[in-house]
Amino acid sequence: MFQIPRGTRDFTPEEMQKRRYVEEKMRIAFQHFGYKEVQTPTFETLELFTAKSGETIIDELYFFKDKGGRDLALRPELTAPVIRFYVDKLQMEPKPLKLFYFGNCFRYDRPQKGRYREFMQAGCELIGTDTPEAYAELISLAYTILKNVGLNDLKLYIGNLNVLSSIFNSFNISKDQQIKLIPLIDKSMFNDIILFLKDSEISENDAKKFTEVLKQSDSNVILNLIEKDEQSKNEMMRLIQILDLLKNNFDIKTSEIKMSIVRGLDYYKGVVFEIDAPGLGAEKQLCGGGAYELIPLFGGRETPTSGFAIGFDRTILALDVEKYKFPIQNLDVYIIPVDEKMSIKSLEITQNLRKQGLSVDMDLLNRGISKSLKYASSINVDKIIIVGQKELDDESVTVRDMKTGKQELVKINNLYQKMH
Amino acid sequence: MFQIPRGTRDFTPEEMQKRRYVEEKMRIAFQHFGYKEVQTPTFETLELFTAKSGETIIDELYFFKDKGGRDLALRPELTAPVIRFYVDKLQMEPKPLKLFYFGNCFRYDRPQKGRYREFMQAGCELIGTDTPEAYAELISLAYTILKNVGLNDLKLYIGNLNVLSSIFNSFNISKDQQIKLIPLIDKSMFNDIILFLKDSEISENDAKKFTEVLKQSDSNVILNLIEKDEQSKNEMMRLIQILDLLKNNFDIKTSEIKMSIVRGLDYYKGVVFEIDAPGLGAEKQLCGGGAYELIPLFGGRETPTSGFAIGFDRTILALDVEKYKFPIQNLDVYIIPVDEKMSIKSLEITQNLRKQGLSVDMDLLNRGISKSLKYASSINVDKIIIVGQKELDDESVTVRDMKTGKQELVKINNLYQKMH
Repeated sequence: MFQIPRGTRDFTPEEMQKRRYVEEKMRIAFQHFGYKEVQTPTFETLELFTAKSGETIIDELYFFKDKGGRDLALRPELTAPVIRFYVDKLQMEPKPLKLFYFGNCFRYDRPQKGRYREFMQAGCELIGTDTPEAYAELISLAYTILKNVGLNDLKLYIGNLNVLSSIFNSFNISKDQQIKLIPLIDKSMFNDIILFLKDSEISENDAKKFTEVLKQSDSNVILNLIEKDEQSKNEMMRLIQILDLLKNNFDIKTSEIKMSIVRGLDYYKGVVFEIDAPGLGAEKQLCGGGAYELIPLFGGRETPTSGFAIGFDRTILALDVEKYKFPIQNLDVYIIPVDEKMSIKSLEITQNLRKQGLSVDMDLLNRGISKSLKYASSINVDKIIIVGQKELDDESVTVRDMKTGKQELVKINNLYQKMH
Repeated sequence: MFQIPRGTRDFTPEEMQKRRYVEEKMRIAFQHFGYKEVQTPTFETLELFTAKSGETIIDELYFFKDKGGRDLALRPELTAPVIRFYVDKLQMEPKPLKLFYFGNCFRYDRPQKGRYREFMQAGCELIGTDTPEAYAELISLAYTILKNVGLNDLKLYIGNLNVLSSIFNSFNISKDQQIKLIPLIDKSMFNDIILFLKDSEISENDAKKFTEVLKQSDSNVILNLIEKDEQSKNEMMRLIQILDLLKNNFDIKTSEIKMSIVRGLDYYKGVVFEIDAPGLGAEKQLCGGGAYELIPLFGGRETPTSGFAIGFDRTILALDVEKYKFPIQNLDVYIIPVDEKMSIKSLEITQNLRKQGLSVDMDLLNRGISKSLKYASSINVDKIIIVGQKELDDESVTVRDMKTGKQELVKINNLYQKMH
């Protein structure tokens, strides 16, 4: 009768087990790297997001007025809220400040595979440091998280927006042209890039050379191209240093330079990176991040910031594609009173086992043994206990192991030990 | 520069530690009782909530139109969404079905202590059983959860809306009068109740007698009053049975009958209960629940349902009022390279200890030993490791215990063992 809103999802117990398992693995990785969890509200003032991303983002937002006439919006991402929080209340904390978070975000997208109108992000912000070691650690954290949740097939790409900007300059591509090119670069539409540049009175030869550079992963070729730009050369050297640190100190052998990472966002600058799960096809990007500048825009004192966001839902999809075997959390024990008279004794056993830390359920319908056995075999349960008068007279109950099918009489006093 | 929306909150790392700790304790209790977690979207169609609670609820909702012109609302509670989910997709699951959930909810309230516009609820629904054992287990679960998170001062009250209805009838209080009385009963405004009844041509004597019954916790007095109403007498007998089960089988000695529980909601019927933390004053109610009827209204096949919701934020407040000592989650190790040359070796040690399951951070700013020591003492950390050339020549580092202040040289190979 009532429909779920379009593009949103209900999660079954099986799905929630997966999600909580992945969330906990991610949380532990963040904490191992010294990050601390924070949380912000589900909605913010609309102007927070337009200040960060421009007026055009309004088309993708769920927004509404509150009764005081204020414009509010469901958050489309978590960096703006967390930096607002930082500027508001955390500026005096010792630096570097390492914050992580989980949160539902909302985008008014056309629903499609791997894209939902409500989705979860995991992410972090690193505030107050911009050393190569710091960036290497940040990138390795993102990679470690995805490895730790169980993914094998991952591709890590690292770029630098200052270097990209220098490449634009070396081809005399103007700011206006850059703005139009960026969406094409983001989607690796190299033919369209060449067509666009030719229309912009750039020689076909240069246009082709430009796309070759974008596809280039050899740092020496890139260094040659930008050798006149001292600042970009320094950035490139730092990028090489970060790749070395990742390889030699963070055990990540497979990172690759990709100059065409644009992150589609104006406030990024310097180092940027992405992690893909190639198995997911068009929606393969699991993680994106890098250095960015947002604190001054939000009225705070300037300090280096970087961070990343992981698409939680896509991570689950990627695990499913890799046929990852999630651990199944069974009920430990299901207790069946053979008749209504056994129900009180069954309750007592149920409560005692729960107090000892087991997950226990019992027949609350007084439906008798055969229906209860049928129910027990329809749920995931490790052991069942059958409580009957004859066995009780001997202070015992019947225990059946649902994996082996073996059945035995167990003294009530020894029940807890037998349940392992 | 940008403000947090009124009535909402940011949570600091310290607050998040508390919240995740309480959430996990609650989750374990639900699971021990055989409940399984589900999740629904943050917003639903507006009509889902008006169908359940009437048009007047709109005043308390955040609602908006999506671009398809559909009216959507941020959920004010979780029972309606979960029952919508059940009717949609879970009706064929074996019964009884035990579902629990955590979720943020939204109400356009005037913000005040313990009341926020965004707040978190923990709760559950028990679908497919209405035996006294089932109700006793449900109520004991709510009580156990609050006990397990660490609360000592709790009051459990149990009522029955069918019995209350029978009491209304025995005093010839009409349906219209009941509707006006219910908010007064809900707030225990007994003088106002007497005034209202006198205005409604009920004798002062009867009015006083009526309020005495509402305050009554002696089951015999109530049984006498409703002796002509066979159905209500049966309900009362079942209520007594539930109280006995709670006392004798669920170890809850302090539950009390309270006839004035109305739960303020039309769809409740039969057993209702509340758990208060008296220390919280006006906002003392932590948990409310009972039997209700919602599935047929949502187009599903009729089956008994009951459940409860716990105010997560108030639970945290109540723990603070009781000065509960939350466990503090320190960083295990902070690593300080004495100079920039030691930074690579420090990274190696950092990564190795992380891989062994410790939470480790290191100086990413190359700021030298004295500034790093100052930083380390400003954060919560158990041990610090100082990496210097002289000690490295001997394959050692300096380890300082931040609790005892003791400092010693430790071989790098023995570091992990020394960290415990």
